[in-house]
Amino acid sequence: MSKGTLYIVSAPSGAGKSSLINALLETNPTYDMKVSVSHTTRGMRPGEEHGVHYNFVSVEEFTDLVEQGAFLEHAEVFGNYYGTSRLWIEEQLNKGIDVFLDIDWQGARQIRKLMPAAKSIFILPPSKEELERRLNTRGQDSETVIARRMQEARSEISHFDEYDYVIVNDDFDVALIDFKAIIRAERLKQDKQAAKYKSMLSALLADQ
Amino acid sequence: MSKGTLYIVSAPSGAGKSSLINALLETNPTYDMKVSVSHTTRGMRPGEEHGVHYNFVSVEEFTDLVEQGAFLEHAEVFGNYYGTSRLWIEEQLNKGIDVFLDIDWQGARQIRKLMPAAKSIFILPPSKEELERRLNTRGQDSETVIARRMQEARSEISHFDEYDYVIVNDDFDVALIDFKAIIRAERLKQDKQAAKYKSMLSALLADQ
Repeated sequence: MSKGTLYIVSAPSGAGKSSLINALLETNPTYDMKVSVSHTTRGMRPGEEHGVHYNFVSVEEFTDLVEQGAFLEHAEVFGNYYGTSRLWIEEQLNKGIDVFLDIDWQGARQIRKLMPAAKSIFILPPSKEELERRLNTRGQDSETVIARRMQEARSEISHFDEYDYVIVNDDFDVALIDFKAIIRAERLKQDKQAAKYKSMLSALLADQ
Repeated sequence: MSKGTLYIVSAPSGAGKSSLINALLETNPTYDMKVSVSHTTRGMRPGEEHGVHYNFVSVEEFTDLVEQGAFLEHAEVFGNYYGTSRLWIEEQLNKGIDVFLDIDWQGARQIRKLMPAAKSIFILPPSKEELERRLNTRGQDSETVIARRMQEARSEISHFDEYDYVIVNDDFDVALIDFKAIIRAERLKQDKQAAKYKSMLSALLADQ
């Protein structure tokens, strides 16, 4: 069996990143893809499941994990702790599961340093006009609000060239096919195939 | 427009390489893929077309091209010259056309040195038994003949780990989908996309 791949996925808001990741996982019948599940110390809310929405841990457990260097990154938000567990991710990868990590360009840089085998994908909107339309979510936001969102989007987009792959999300179905092609192709990389077909290759290469 | 990619495709006989390349090009509606067309000094045969089956040139033209360093590799076979034109390939790549080069591992090594941006794909049969069956083409070849073919196949297969991608041709349709996924994914690489969407990116990144 070959190891899974860690995918870093970034995009400005309005590019359709979450919809693409969700669609990818919904249409995946083999259970060999997962979105990275963060650890948190906040309480579980109705409808949430441990290991699905978050890995719910106590403050003590979280602090221990921080001390063990278990997190790729962690932060405190409104008195609760959130972290991306390197151990959890490596556990999935070792099971042959591809893991998708939804983070911004700054997080992406950190992850690339810590996990250099990760592949990164940047998702772009198809045009400035379409991005403005998508950022004007309620159709009645003020020009100032839209301008600020555009500025944030521009700042994120300016880092697109740090990524391995770029998908332009014009037609959603086409973008989803692109996304799937990247994952399929990465699984065909020589080292992955050598691991997957180890015994077959031994038989092919053995003398008579 | 982004440049095309040069694909080096190798396989032992019996792996289905030619069928896969032919199927890929037949089902390609956009005319942005071509098999590398060799130069030759031999005469044109009935049904052959210049620029399709070969680029037919005189011995003088061929010798000039050799002196210009135009060939990635060339050889004499039965008194005729054959060569893979670097100039022709670069012309196609500059037009945004992906070029497929069907060569063995030794040729692949030469091409990688001369054109380091090339991507290489190795095609494997699904098992030793299936390879033996496919190599026993007439169903009545002698054991010695099959053993020799198997030895040649083993020798080629032993270099699979020098390639970027590996496709296992068990089910032909699945192998074709794999092949297409690699090409689609390579077109989504950041540098290709940056060239293709240059003006759109400029607009997205420009201040108001």
